[in-house]
Amino acid sequence: VSVVGVIAAGGSGERLGASVPKAFVVLGGRALYEWSFEVLRGVCDRVVVAVPSETSDLRPQTSDVVVGGASRSASVRNALAAAPEASVVVVHDAARPLVERDLVERCIAALDGVDGAIAAAPVTDTVKEADSAGRVVRTLDRSVLWAVQTPQVFRADVLRRALDVDESVLASATDDASLVEAAGGAIVLVEAPRENIKVTTELDLRVAEAMLEARC
Amino acid sequence: VSVVGVIAAGGSGERLGASVPKAFVVLGGRALYEWSFEVLRGVCDRVVVAVPSETSDLRPQTSDVVVGGASRSASVRNALAAAPEASVVVVHDAARPLVERDLVERCIAALDGVDGAIAAAPVTDTVKEADSAGRVVRTLDRSVLWAVQTPQVFRADVLRRALDVDESVLASATDDASLVEAAGGAIVLVEAPRENIKVTTELDLRVAEAMLEARC
Repeated sequence: VSVVGVIAAGGSGERLGASVPKAFVVLGGRALYEWSFEVLRGVCDRVVVAVPSETSDLRPQTSDVVVGGASRSASVRNALAAAPEASVVVVHDAARPLVERDLVERCIAALDGVDGAIAAAPVTDTVKEADSAGRVVRTLDRSVLWAVQTPQVFRADVLRRALDVDESVLASATDDASLVEAAGGAIVLVEAPRENIKVTTELDLRVAEAMLEARC
Repeated sequence: VSVVGVIAAGGSGERLGASVPKAFVVLGGRALYEWSFEVLRGVCDRVVVAVPSETSDLRPQTSDVVVGGASRSASVRNALAAAPEASVVVVHDAARPLVERDLVERCIAALDGVDGAIAAAPVTDTVKEADSAGRVVRTLDRSVLWAVQTPQVFRADVLRRALDVDESVLASATDDASLVEAAGGAIVLVEAPRENIKVTTELDLRVAEAMLEARC
């Protein structure tokens, strides 16, 4: 079994007010992507980082690097093409720097007998469906709803097939698991700590800093 | 038109590691509930605070106070019983101290022609439905999903009727709007800033402090 990590690092730094891509924004003295890179490197045989095409001069020296595609899932596909030896793929979003090794390991362990195992937390907000005019259509039963995160771990052959679709389909996917689901794959959820936050805004970055400090 | 604010302040301080109820935990030199109390007082003719029954000695001196019920919605019902003059009710959760006057006013304005107008933000996470074994059943179309917040503003007569149900129904409701929906009422969403966070954990409290500092 060859376990390959893929870090999707294609996000722009715009909402962080940064002039560099999001993955290269500094958090606690390191580039954002380096936090999860270190965690994945401890678990995977190899880690490939998919960076935005405009950042050739910023490419990390410490790892395999591929240039990302037009969408998040297209970037993952490019990374997979560079790792033909993979039998298990751990996809992780560079914007989730606080991921812990335990969660990655639990996702890999949960892959037994299924096609994918993905980190998720129970939805705690009340969620409603609305029409395009903003009228409430219904309130969902949140007890069966999960907000999904990364890592998302897949059998490599299943993920390769799921990603072999039109660019427009890749672009509309909000996570890789939904493409595997669409191809008929079985996915299980792995309960993740709420602390595995996604850094999108400057406030998130400050929260992540506070959490890293609290760890020490 | 008599606009009455109701602050639901019944939450326990347990997850905040506090020995007092959540609404009385100190944030930036004030009790948590006082932040939204001040905002509602600027917009409403009167504000009633529903406090936990075990906190009689902590009852705020500055406002109308009623003792809450067995559930969140039961507390709102108790507060409404103390405000027979209300024609419009602004329900707000004390755990959302960062609410701004503009949002409250926009909810009240949106009540025109409907039964309720509630603060909500678009869902940004990928959300999946799972079975009890944690197997993914489907990925939801998040473009029609909204995470609802407070304030939730209602016509008082409609809310009173919606709350006139069994305690078990009140206890299972995760927001007041769902009870109004169940009674056939029409609800519209009012887009709210993501900054109107709910304080649940100690981390949330630190985030709220950072946001209050950033305001000054």
